[in-house]
Amino acid sequence: MKPASLLQQYRLNVSVPSLSDTASDFERLQRALLPILDSRPVQPSLASLQDLGPALRLGEWQVSVTLTDAGDSWRLVRVNPAQSKVHIYGLAVDLGTTTVVGELIEPGSGKVLASRIIYNGQRQFGVDVTTRMMYAEKKDGLTELRQAILNTMNELIATLCTDLECHSDAISAIVIAGNTIMMHLLLGFDPSSIRRDPYVPTATVYPILSAVETGINAHPGAPLYLFPAASGYVGGDVTAGLLATGISDKEATSILIDIGTNGETILGNRDFLLACSGSAGSAFEGCGLRWGMAAQPGAIDRVWVTASNELAYQTVGGVPARGICGSGLIEALGAFLQSGAIDRSGKVNRNSSQVILIDGNPEVMIAPENETAVGENLTLRQGDIDNLIRDKAALFAGSRILLANADLSFTDVDEILIAGNFGQSLEVEQAVRIGLLPDIPRERIHFIGNSSLAGARSAILSAEAWQKAQQIAASLTCLELTAETRYFEEYTAALFLPHTNLDLFPSLI
Amino acid sequence: MKPASLLQQYRLNVSVPSLSDTASDFERLQRALLPILDSRPVQPSLASLQDLGPALRLGEWQVSVTLTDAGDSWRLVRVNPAQSKVHIYGLAVDLGTTTVVGELIEPGSGKVLASRIIYNGQRQFGVDVTTRMMYAEKKDGLTELRQAILNTMNELIATLCTDLECHSDAISAIVIAGNTIMMHLLLGFDPSSIRRDPYVPTATVYPILSAVETGINAHPGAPLYLFPAASGYVGGDVTAGLLATGISDKEATSILIDIGTNGETILGNRDFLLACSGSAGSAFEGCGLRWGMAAQPGAIDRVWVTASNELAYQTVGGVPARGICGSGLIEALGAFLQSGAIDRSGKVNRNSSQVILIDGNPEVMIAPENETAVGENLTLRQGDIDNLIRDKAALFAGSRILLANADLSFTDVDEILIAGNFGQSLEVEQAVRIGLLPDIPRERIHFIGNSSLAGARSAILSAEAWQKAQQIAASLTCLELTAETRYFEEYTAALFLPHTNLDLFPSLI
Repeated sequence: MKPASLLQQYRLNVSVPSLSDTASDFERLQRALLPILDSRPVQPSLASLQDLGPALRLGEWQVSVTLTDAGDSWRLVRVNPAQSKVHIYGLAVDLGTTTVVGELIEPGSGKVLASRIIYNGQRQFGVDVTTRMMYAEKKDGLTELRQAILNTMNELIATLCTDLECHSDAISAIVIAGNTIMMHLLLGFDPSSIRRDPYVPTATVYPILSAVETGINAHPGAPLYLFPAASGYVGGDVTAGLLATGISDKEATSILIDIGTNGETILGNRDFLLACSGSAGSAFEGCGLRWGMAAQPGAIDRVWVTASNELAYQTVGGVPARGICGSGLIEALGAFLQSGAIDRSGKVNRNSSQVILIDGNPEVMIAPENETAVGENLTLRQGDIDNLIRDKAALFAGSRILLANADLSFTDVDEILIAGNFGQSLEVEQAVRIGLLPDIPRERIHFIGNSSLAGARSAILSAEAWQKAQQIAASLTCLELTAETRYFEEYTAALFLPHTNLDLFPSLI
Repeated sequence: MKPASLLQQYRLNVSVPSLSDTASDFERLQRALLPILDSRPVQPSLASLQDLGPALRLGEWQVSVTLTDAGDSWRLVRVNPAQSKVHIYGLAVDLGTTTVVGELIEPGSGKVLASRIIYNGQRQFGVDVTTRMMYAEKKDGLTELRQAILNTMNELIATLCTDLECHSDAISAIVIAGNTIMMHLLLGFDPSSIRRDPYVPTATVYPILSAVETGINAHPGAPLYLFPAASGYVGGDVTAGLLATGISDKEATSILIDIGTNGETILGNRDFLLACSGSAGSAFEGCGLRWGMAAQPGAIDRVWVTASNELAYQTVGGVPARGICGSGLIEALGAFLQSGAIDRSGKVNRNSSQVILIDGNPEVMIAPENETAVGENLTLRQGDIDNLIRDKAALFAGSRILLANADLSFTDVDEILIAGNFGQSLEVEQAVRIGLLPDIPRERIHFIGNSSLAGARSAILSAEAWQKAQQIAASLTCLELTAETRYFEEYTAALFLPHTNLDLFPSLI
């Protein structure tokens, strides 16, 4: 049986009133819904009641109603005359620190009809969540940050609606997965306490709000569902990712690594879920790198070494290169090591044929200026490479700490799932070669794309999934890495390619 | 025991977080509320969560929280640091077709700290509900009517807040009692179906909305409670009036007559409640009369015949007369009949010493121009008197029809309660003399003032009262007077003073 969608649409025949049955329009609608829904009460939005009378009469007592499952009740989002050809979409969003990805979903078929990724407009106030939280403490800082993300959300919505040639009114429910700090900044909650010991957020579970009340363009009756978080640093994006992967249902033990701006890692199975967050991974999103960018057309997403030991690449959409995105960065680092352009410490080798000198500094060339859309050589500099190595070290150390806490090692892990806004065709071998991933049988490693977005999508299409997300968030145990004595040691050891301790990477020796 | 208020305020000690207890601010608040509230869930407003983090830390984990009882849950309206001296008020409103009355109430003490009456700004679009509904069907008509009543509400709020020297943010819950058409126009519901057979409204029970979402100035977390109605013409104002009078709890049989713009009448006791509405009573609110006005300073509120058979009057506030309000109109009509200024058919007697000729037409003088603030003679014209007689006839006929349907007569009625925006000192004898009220023992007749407002006030102060209002609205049976074959006959017979059939008024013969 198909799971009951969070966002539902029904065509109803409502009984015609008469002097012997003068019940109000809304009572009549409730009566017509009773055989379809369960006995939970129906809470009408103001907009749905404003539309109700005209819709019933224009539709000659046949209407199309849109509802969402609100747990202990139903929300009546909107009512339209049955014959009107209005479009009703659900919007699933991964609201990331660096990028925001949205999908418009048709609730009946579950089809994704439009998909867009754009940068988070808050980037002008800082690359990572810490600098944003610091900015929020300035005068009007929180207001500016909130307005920036609202602008981004509304720009994303406008673009998606242009793609489908619809009005933002078509959006009848929104599900957002995002980290706790992004949720605070979106809702205007002061995040300052998240940044300070004991790192307590305002809320980890959010009420179902009105999208319009929050400042997001949508149908005035559209509810806003925000994924619940486990803590200030293990957010709703992690909950959504776990929902999408089903890790918490499996007997097998998994590791989920979300290579986003915050680099959350989760270890667990159906018996336990252990999570940490390392403020690591933003380099793999292109942050802080000269040519880093999101996986948009023109982004170099694949890099490899040819038979003649030269570097080759491919771009998203096959158009001239404009920058390099996450998957390209992982493969580039592996390819550099493979070709000898860098050594195990990440140091650029001035003697390599892939290395050019710019202002006396060695840089590894990926795409020469005559092939790019930007009229410059696309390279990685020493600083870029060091950033990437620091982030991969933090991620690897995080996994090691989680395993140690569960008294496990990588060999006990049945699968490692790498989530992030990059292609699922990424070369696993290169991720292991640089020590981003451990040296376990390669078939256990899967790149799963944007699992946070996948979780948001599955919640729109299943009320049961949404309920499950609540359980997942509540069952997550969060480790504070900075409080773990062995963390710094693990981190330092991982600052080599693949690692200081090569015994951990036997297949590479 | 004092009943639990709909609007409640508590001072809480919230546990201080530590690395061993990193629950979110909202979880901590819920924990602190648990021993105080019952186990119903707490639904936070967006505003309350925005304030929560700073309030807890500024208040050093001592906060003042404001909640309202929402039936199956609690609404968290706002959170303030405990030491901040913020004012929290509930606003009770009688939203009438002609006038809007508001009171600011202190939830703890139940004291009414400010009270104001102003005209409903929709008057420019028509005097009664029917003409307003007709206007609502014009292009942009509904929008204009809605904006007019929102402007009136916000003007009322501004005036009340000026009286108490507070910001509209202080208003933390609003309870409104109003007729069904006013509620539709306030919320932007199309009222057109109420005007046409079978007279069906969009809704008679309203969800608890956000005041600000609706367009009313208040704290952004303040909920808006609207009294439930029984039908399109027996509205939430009647429900509130019944709640205030307690008729539905008594073994004794009562009649409640609300002399407002719509003239609703209810007959009943704890076993039954029968209601009708006659679109009658607006003349007694001063509508359609040359010098009619609300009971504001300068309104003539008392009129009587002196020992020398002359007319005397008194004004609200003892200031020079500007017009005449409801109680003055009832007493004036009785005094005119008593002094011989009009005859039993209401015809003005040109030979009376109280009558002057203006442009050749006889008018009954109440206040000569040299005593008034308007520089003109305050008189009642023939047309004014005819309007009043039509309204009193409709009200009397309504009661007769209700009684006939219950197989009762006026002698079976234990009390008649007259509600309306006029003084409780009104002379009962004059109301009987003109046949507005039946000829029953005078001690059974009580003028109770604005019972709709009293109901709204009692709901703010008692969640139990609010629940009771839901039951009252559901238990009301509404008669459609125009569908009653005997109604027109009863109405015509009552167009005399006191009545065509003097057997009904034995004490006056």
